[in-house]
Amino acid sequence: MKIYDFKGFPNPTRVRIALAEKRLSHRVEFVSINLPEGEHKRPSFLAKNPFGLVPVLELEDGTTIAECTAITEYLDHIDGEPILTGKTVRDRALIHMMQRRVEASLFEAVVAYYHHATPGLGPEIELYQNREWGEKSLERAKHCMEYLDGVLATQPYLAGNQFSVADITAFVGITFAASLDTRVPSTCSSLRAWQDRIAGRPSINAVA
Amino acid sequence: MKIYDFKGFPNPTRVRIALAEKRLSHRVEFVSINLPEGEHKRPSFLAKNPFGLVPVLELEDGTTIAECTAITEYLDHIDGEPILTGKTVRDRALIHMMQRRVEASLFEAVVAYYHHATPGLGPEIELYQNREWGEKSLERAKHCMEYLDGVLATQPYLAGNQFSVADITAFVGITFAASLDTRVPSTCSSLRAWQDRIAGRPSINAVA
Ligand SMILES: N[C@@H](CCC(=O)N[C@@H](CS)C(=O)NCC(=O)O)C(=O)O
Ligand SMILES: N[C@@H](CCC(=O)N[C@@H](CS)C(=O)NCC(=O)O)C(=O)O
Repeated sequence: MKIYDFKGFPNPTRVRIALAEKRLSHRVEFVSINLPEGEHKRPSFLAKNPFGLVPVLELEDGTTIAECTAITEYLDHIDGEPILTGKTVRDRALIHMMQRRVEASLFEAVVAYYHHATPGLGPEIELYQNREWGEKSLERAKHCMEYLDGVLATQPYLAGNQFSVADITAFVGITFAASLDTRVPSTCSSLRAWQDRIAGRPSINAVA
Repeated sequence: MKIYDFKGFPNPTRVRIALAEKRLSHRVEFVSINLPEGEHKRPSFLAKNPFGLVPVLELEDGTTIAECTAITEYLDHIDGEPILTGKTVRDRALIHMMQRRVEASLFEAVVAYYHHATPGLGPEIELYQNREWGEKSLERAKHCMEYLDGVLATQPYLAGNQFSVADITAFVGITFAASLDTRVPSTCSSLRAWQDRIAGRPSINAVA
C-alpha cells in the first residue's frame, strides 16, 4: 500500500496515528505531496483524488481511497489490534457517532479557523477567506471542548472504555488548535487529563 | 427501536430512505420532535442528543445514536438487503469515501446555504447567519454536482455498480437544493438521469 500525504499536517497525522496504533506503518510506502508548493492541485495528484486533498491510500490494484475515516476503516479491517472503529454493531455506531461529532464540531472547526482566520496555506492556495466564519468556527470548537470535557468526566475515552478513532480525530484537532494558540481551557480538567494520557501513547511519539 | 425526527426535513429523510430500502420501517416507532417550535433544544431532547439535532435512534436498552451515517451503519448491520454501506472491505471504503464527499461538499453545503443565506428555521433558531458563507457554500454544492456528473458518466451509482448510502445522501441534498430553487444544471445530463432513476425507487415514494 502507498499513502500520499505530507508529514505534520493534521489529516495525514490522523491516518499515521491509526497506522502506528495498529503497527501497520511498515506495510505502507509514504509518498510526500508538497502542500505548501501546491503539488496537491496538479493533475498527477488530482488523478488520485479529484478533491486535491491528502491523505490518499493507494491499494496494490491502484484503487485510491481518500478521506481519513474511510482510510482508517479500511486499515481497521485488514489487520492489527486495537480495533479503532469498534467490534460490536453497537460499539461501531457509538464510535462512528462520536467520531463524526468531534470531526465536525472540533477538528473541521479548527481547520476552518485556520483556513479562514489565519494566513492558512498562504494566498496562492487560500483563494477565499471569510474571517468571521473562521472566528465563529473557533468558538464552535471551544464549545465542543466543553462538551468533550463533560463526556470524559464519566468515561476514559471519547466513545467509551476503549481508545478509538474518535480519540485520534479529537486529539489531532486539539493539537492543531494549540499550534494556532488556542489551548484547552484550564476549566476542562477531564479533557486536559485525557489529552495528557493520549499524548503518552507510543503512537503519538511515533508520528511526531 | 425508536427514531426521534421530524418528517420532511433532510437528515430525517436520509434515515427514512435507508429504512425503506431495507424494509425495516415497520420495526421503528417514530417520535416527532417539532423543529420549527424548537422542541429539539429543550432538555428532554438534549438528554437524547446534546447537539440538539435530529434524527436520533434509540435502542431497546435506551442507548441513543445520533448522526445519520452512524444510524445507517447500525441499521445496515441488523438486517435486510440491500447492504447500503458495502460488503467487502474495499467496497466499504469506497462507499464511505463517496458518502463523506457528497455529505461534506453537497449535502452539508446546501444545508449551510439554507441556514446562512435563506431564512432557514427562522430568527428564533438561526441565531448566527453569515450570508457570504451561505452563498459560497451553494457554489461549492454546484461544483460538487459537476464532479458527480463526471462520476456518473462511467458508472450507474455514485460509489460504483450498487446503490449505496452515498446515493441517499446525494439525492436528499439535491432534492433539498431544488426546494431552495437550485436545480442540477441542465449540462449535467448523467447526474440528471441518475436523479430520475433514484426518484423512481420505491423507497423514495415511501418517505414522500
Ligand atoms: N476530509 C478530508 C480532509 C483532507 C484535507 O483537508 N487535507 C488537508 C491537509 S491537512 C489538505 O490536503 N489541504 C490542502 C488544501 O486545503 O488545499 C479527509 O478526511 O482526509
Ligand atoms: N450531522 C447530523 C445533522 C443533523 C441535523 O442537522 N438535523 C437537522 C434537521 S435536517 C436539525 O436537527 N436541525 C435543527 C437545528 O439546526 O437547529 C446528522 O447526520 O444527523
